[in-house]
Amino acid sequence: MSGVIIPIQGTQSNSGKTPSVEPLMNLVQSDMERVNHLVLSKCGSQVEMIPEVARHLIDSGGKRLRPMLTLAAAQMCGYRGDHHVTLAASVEFMHTATLLHDDVVDESDLRRGKLAARMLWGNQASVLVGDFLLGQAFRMMVESGSMKALECLSHASTVIAEGEVLQLGTAKNLETTQDEYIEVVRAKTAALFAAAAEVGPILAGSNRSMLSAFRSYGNNLGLAFQLIDDALDYGGKAATLGKNVGDDFREGKVTLPVLLCYRRGGEKEREFWREAIEQGENDDTRLEEAMRLMHEKDALADTLERARQYCDLAKDALATIEDSPQKEALLEVLDYSLLRAH
Amino acid sequence: MSGVIIPIQGTQSNSGKTPSVEPLMNLVQSDMERVNHLVLSKCGSQVEMIPEVARHLIDSGGKRLRPMLTLAAAQMCGYRGDHHVTLAASVEFMHTATLLHDDVVDESDLRRGKLAARMLWGNQASVLVGDFLLGQAFRMMVESGSMKALECLSHASTVIAEGEVLQLGTAKNLETTQDEYIEVVRAKTAALFAAAAEVGPILAGSNRSMLSAFRSYGNNLGLAFQLIDDALDYGGKAATLGKNVGDDFREGKVTLPVLLCYRRGGEKEREFWREAIEQGENDDTRLEEAMRLMHEKDALADTLERARQYCDLAKDALATIEDSPQKEALLEVLDYSLLRAH
Repeated sequence: MSGVIIPIQGTQSNSGKTPSVEPLMNLVQSDMERVNHLVLSKCGSQVEMIPEVARHLIDSGGKRLRPMLTLAAAQMCGYRGDHHVTLAASVEFMHTATLLHDDVVDESDLRRGKLAARMLWGNQASVLVGDFLLGQAFRMMVESGSMKALECLSHASTVIAEGEVLQLGTAKNLETTQDEYIEVVRAKTAALFAAAAEVGPILAGSNRSMLSAFRSYGNNLGLAFQLIDDALDYGGKAATLGKNVGDDFREGKVTLPVLLCYRRGGEKEREFWREAIEQGENDDTRLEEAMRLMHEKDALADTLERARQYCDLAKDALATIEDSPQKEALLEVLDYSLLRAH
Repeated sequence: MSGVIIPIQGTQSNSGKTPSVEPLMNLVQSDMERVNHLVLSKCGSQVEMIPEVARHLIDSGGKRLRPMLTLAAAQMCGYRGDHHVTLAASVEFMHTATLLHDDVVDESDLRRGKLAARMLWGNQASVLVGDFLLGQAFRMMVESGSMKALECLSHASTVIAEGEVLQLGTAKNLETTQDEYIEVVRAKTAALFAAAAEVGPILAGSNRSMLSAFRSYGNNLGLAFQLIDDALDYGGKAATLGKNVGDDFREGKVTLPVLLCYRRGGEKEREFWREAIEQGENDDTRLEEAMRLMHEKDALADTLERARQYCDLAKDALATIEDSPQKEALLEVLDYSLLRAH
């Protein structure tokens, strides 16, 4: 299956270099080492299977974008304590717990290019180790001593679960509207990005407009992030994705590019999508056909256009915040995200 | 299948009447109405399926013993605020979330005499609505404003998950020792009873010895409660249990009566248990044989004897606490629990 190049405009950073997540990584590096250390130590349990399952996922090299947001935002707000490290680890645990439960719900075989934990230890272990990590996430929030951070993150945990349940209803339903789909993404993905970005300023005791700014940045980055992921599934390369092109197609997932294609197609094309998504007729020939239709209907380009709009909103959200290397790096993450779609 | 009468001594309350949970229910009744109201309102979500699934379980009439512990303990420590109601609801949600996840892990068909939620809405909904309720439980803890209560309950949530994972390892393993089994019960069941009893005095700002006393009462009641449940599965009536006699047997669960029977049997009997528990040969004839062996080996009587010892420990734990109608009622719950086994 050939990779598909999707043209992206405006992805050059201000400096003219190729946008990258590296400046952000460099700025938070020393804090991030403490987060990684904490993450590993909080996976520990006398119950052997827990660190085994947890580390399988944690060692598999996610980019840890969410905790980096927490660290960078805390730095930008002049926070001087240690609890941004605790909360960043907490955010990463919430994310990891969600992934473990997601794989059970979606019956996924792969995660980040490795066998999903449920394939190695079973669904049972994935559910229960997810619960353990969620519990550890809350214990770390408590350690941070900030009631407001606890409020923000515990609220996010219910919104994420709501989003996942909402997604069950849209699953295999091609009549899902774009708005309904965006609501799912806002809850299941963007809510954690928003909370991750907001708890930094919360710890720093920043004012309401700072909290809103970071929250909005995280929310819109999260939306863009998911839409780009949706597009990549019909046009990226397995190696860079950690999942195979066509995974969403084979799992019958209703994503934005699919919804656009379905709505823009004639009756015969809609029948194709119903057979593929609802009835599971999704072999490689059909995947090729799906990808052809995506191009014909501009479904990938328009999904990425929508992602770009969310990136613009995220950029605007930070506009009133004082310039700093961290701000520059967060803005570059937006361009980097769009570039990923190449 | 005939019910089995297990002789119990010393189950008369001090007053000579048949011990009951009613005095406790009466003492906490007005608080409990507020808890029930809160539980229902916190099931709410615009995502329709969430209240449906949650209320299926919540309306199915568990006794709500755990939140009653929180309320009674708070009263006994002279707590005058409203947050004992919030925390009691939080405890009930933690319990409900655990049940939803348990049914997925155990592949159970029934819960409290009704079809398990996973049979009606699927495993996916059970996992995700469980996550939602856990999130709501944490939000209520945050509302209570007590960091110490948050610490106590979030710690319990990780211990419960550890206990569940530990149980995966003992599942179908007849070589499990009694000590290992008790460790599982301590984590997966007793930890929440202990936390439920302790958060009352925590809210009231009671001293360390009060906290320990209530914690110890809850822990030992929880241990007794589970062992009695284990015994009932081989000798109770479906109507009073909300589950069928022999459910544990048919699911191949390794419980204390099974472990005792296995260890006390000859090689031929051990082979019987291996076939039943490990290989799933568990039809009604075999269940009758299992129940016969339980009696022959005193496995039920000794399981209940162990439960009685834990009840004694729970009683002793409250000894230094000032007499009150609530204390009397909590002591009566111990006798009532043992009486359940009749």
